[in-house]
Amino acid sequence: MAKFKRGKQSFELPQMPVISAWASIAGKKESEGPLAYTYDTASSDTRFGQKTWEQAEKYMQQLALDTLASKAGMKKEQFDLVLSGDLLNQCIGSSFSLRNTNIPHLGLYGACSTMAESLLTASMVVSGGFADKVVAMTSSHFASSERQYRFPLGYGGQRTPTAQWTVTGAGATLVENAGTGPRIECCTIGTVTDLGIKDANNMGAAMAPAAYQTIRAHLDDLGRSPEDFDLIVTGDLGQLGKEMLLELAKRDGLSLGGKITDCGNLVFDNTSQDVHAGGSGCGCSAIALCGYLLGQLNTGKLKRILFCGTGALLSPTSTQQGLPIPGTCHAVSIITGRN
Amino acid sequence: MAKFKRGKQSFELPQMPVISAWASIAGKKESEGPLAYTYDTASSDTRFGQKTWEQAEKYMQQLALDTLASKAGMKKEQFDLVLSGDLLNQCIGSSFSLRNTNIPHLGLYGACSTMAESLLTASMVVSGGFADKVVAMTSSHFASSERQYRFPLGYGGQRTPTAQWTVTGAGATLVENAGTGPRIECCTIGTVTDLGIKDANNMGAAMAPAAYQTIRAHLDDLGRSPEDFDLIVTGDLGQLGKEMLLELAKRDGLSLGGKITDCGNLVFDNTSQDVHAGGSGCGCSAIALCGYLLGQLNTGKLKRILFCGTGALLSPTSTQQGLPIPGTCHAVSIITGRN
Repeated sequence: MAKFKRGKQSFELPQMPVISAWASIAGKKESEGPLAYTYDTASSDTRFGQKTWEQAEKYMQQLALDTLASKAGMKKEQFDLVLSGDLLNQCIGSSFSLRNTNIPHLGLYGACSTMAESLLTASMVVSGGFADKVVAMTSSHFASSERQYRFPLGYGGQRTPTAQWTVTGAGATLVENAGTGPRIECCTIGTVTDLGIKDANNMGAAMAPAAYQTIRAHLDDLGRSPEDFDLIVTGDLGQLGKEMLLELAKRDGLSLGGKITDCGNLVFDNTSQDVHAGGSGCGCSAIALCGYLLGQLNTGKLKRILFCGTGALLSPTSTQQGLPIPGTCHAVSIITGRN
Repeated sequence: MAKFKRGKQSFELPQMPVISAWASIAGKKESEGPLAYTYDTASSDTRFGQKTWEQAEKYMQQLALDTLASKAGMKKEQFDLVLSGDLLNQCIGSSFSLRNTNIPHLGLYGACSTMAESLLTASMVVSGGFADKVVAMTSSHFASSERQYRFPLGYGGQRTPTAQWTVTGAGATLVENAGTGPRIECCTIGTVTDLGIKDANNMGAAMAPAAYQTIRAHLDDLGRSPEDFDLIVTGDLGQLGKEMLLELAKRDGLSLGGKITDCGNLVFDNTSQDVHAGGSGCGCSAIALCGYLLGQLNTGKLKRILFCGTGALLSPTSTQQGLPIPGTCHAVSIITGRN
């Protein structure tokens, strides 16, 4: 048994890495939502002055990295490593944002779970002593996602009631061994879970079983209960996925009760913003974390959360070939930096 | 400064992780090539009995994982973590191969550099004590790649002289702290390098600058010279990319001379197999590593190699939008397990 491993899917971090800085970039609709006051950049231009949606997404990651460096009082060239990924084919939002910056980069793909995946990978790299200043970053864009996964916006397709709204936004965190800020205690790595959901407009249902599996593994591996957390925050299950998660827990005899909230419900106000089942995308959990959640942890209003990035592992090809949508979920336990 | 970090892009592994087992699965054309005798499965059916090319790729990863478990004398459920990725949109070759196996999984995206990226990430996870038995795996498939990045095969498009042939194959390695086998000494993480190449049929040229940058960083960070290695093996530069790498080194006053070889030239015999500029794809460096190279390191015929996974970070979208092709390269220094 390795020294930090605990149980089948989890590991502990005895010297808890610090999230010493964070930055969030939000698009127009997100900047009209309830968390607007927490974003570093709240843009009224969804294209961010770029020619294409994909370039806009790249630009958001550039802006997130620049903002992060500025907030950390550093030049971005001083970052040791960037761990990032996105939803675009071949993760071009991430790779193009780092072109010729000379910053070492490892690309990740975890669908919408990337904020949690990059954060937990960063915590291993930093805690293991392989690098000092590691950035975990991701993004998504409503228009580039719709074009890629469903239809171009100009087609004017009607959205089904179960559909979610991909968040236009990017989030970045700086993970270090030293400094002040919220700290990463332990993490749980998800498995690929598939209960046979085939509707690409019902991602919440596809991801809920993975979310439940990972939350259950976290509690079992580390001997914890939902009461140990102020919040268990899922990434982008949306309203329907959240209900399904609660149902799965109930059947299993586990009460998650008032502890569960979903970033897809935090980012948009569904009574006025009409996003159907809620927000989604890598950017959804990224901007909720890199603004509201880390802010609350930093001031001590939240003491401990379980941040659960959820991801639907589909592609347009797998959908067209009639395959179901597997899900994954990675969990990061974060505590306040205040004593 | 972290304890294992060395220089800007590199880290050392004082307790060198062991590559205790490896497995390779090869398609038809690959099984007619010079390394045929080194593959665990040499298939005459490029579709591997599946309905689609994408499912064939998924099946190759399943077979690689099963073969790896068998060669390691384990059940695959005993693996602590799989680190994998591929070239398919949203990495469905990797995620679908792990559906409902209950094995924790982190998805990576490094284009064709994924064998090196997954291997270096596995070495951090194992060496840091976060998991014991970690699999690094990847795949590519000629037909699924052509359809996705260029044209479906049925279109009968003519290949340009600079084009490379995407390898149909999958490779998997098991990385552990204990056991016998070749060992990972130190690694260098690549940056995203872009000199403005725009031709999606000339990947070697797009990746050569990244390969040179990473090899140079490895030598500088760790105070090494090309003479310290039996071989410096690039992943899939092909003939043209290799020539460009040698030219870049020469201009910089560095003689790489007889040390450089490329997996794209090892996997196919270009005099009889007509693959134009050589092999390419994640599977190219994967099957060359998980057969010939690790075999030679294991018996001591090779004492030390620098395995340099090269990746072209393009997507059809970025190409259609007229953007250049950035490259990356990650390097892993592997030594023989024999004293």
